[in-house]
Amino acid sequence: MTRRILGIDPGSRITGFGVIDLIGSQRHYVASGCIRTVPGASLAERIRVIVAGIHDVIATYQPSEAAVEQVFVNVNPASTLMLGQARGACVAALVMKDLPVAEYTALQVKQSVVGQGKAPKEQVQYMVVKMLNLSGTPQEDAADALAVALAHANHSGGVMGALAQQGLRVKNGRLA
Amino acid sequence: MTRRILGIDPGSRITGFGVIDLIGSQRHYVASGCIRTVPGASLAERIRVIVAGIHDVIATYQPSEAAVEQVFVNVNPASTLMLGQARGACVAALVMKDLPVAEYTALQVKQSVVGQGKAPKEQVQYMVVKMLNLSGTPQEDAADALAVALAHANHSGGVMGALAQQGLRVKNGRLA
Repeated sequence: MTRRILGIDPGSRITGFGVIDLIGSQRHYVASGCIRTVPGASLAERIRVIVAGIHDVIATYQPSEAAVEQVFVNVNPASTLMLGQARGACVAALVMKDLPVAEYTALQVKQSVVGQGKAPKEQVQYMVVKMLNLSGTPQEDAADALAVALAHANHSGGVMGALAQQGLRVKNGRLA
Repeated sequence: MTRRILGIDPGSRITGFGVIDLIGSQRHYVASGCIRTVPGASLAERIRVIVAGIHDVIATYQPSEAAVEQVFVNVNPASTLMLGQARGACVAALVMKDLPVAEYTALQVKQSVVGQGKAPKEQVQYMVVKMLNLSGTPQEDAADALAVALAHANHSGGVMGALAQQGLRVKNGRLA
């Protein structure tokens, strides 16, 4: 059975998306790209673009599930609020199409894709290219979205995935 | 011509809504209430509840336009992010039903309803009750949502409203 996973990396200016197929234990690249909002546009207009963009991606690629990065950059309160708004709009767009939505922190994505949580951004991109046999490096936000989709593919298969979805982790052989 | 305005006061736990009719210069109460999310539920589940709640309100009362409070409480970065997410989900739910969405800061709402921006919360509620001839005081978040709807009714009628929607203000007779 093929599972088609839509990964989303929300941002107030650029929202990345990445679609992969999971056939057994094999991962295949399907599509990736960016949804760009117009700088200076109203919140309603920017959210309209994000929602329409995600709904276009869903209509085109028909994913069976979605995963969203739990981004958290605390540059300042205003940008944290903006990021939260973009993230809320993304999740709203996904749940409105009845997609199950999993969440992963940046740490979980890095641990899952690179093997350690403190890996630099470039290493995540390198692993995305390698794991999906891509001929070129995708745009940064698109690569991040593919990494989220890969993390979901890795996590949601077995016991570890079930635990992660409950917000639990295994640390030194114990639940943490 | 009757304009039916849906005011929304987004919150990560409780989202208030208030519906008023604007017939000429007269304002009439239609409905108000709260959408409550389950504490501890996942982000996707909480956003599902907010979106479904707003869509229920739209289906029931058929508003012609919407106004959202530009809430901004900077208690800590995590709660700012949560609030942003709720706000993004609210605006997504509104634009998906093709409603025009106006935004007002808490300051603009207070200035519009009470006449000055530093009015305490109780005074806003008192004015909401008075302006809409209510027989009792609505729940706090519902009252805030009605205040946003009233602010939109006051702002969007004339030149001041058109300027406010462009993000401009008139100060001492000049555009600020």
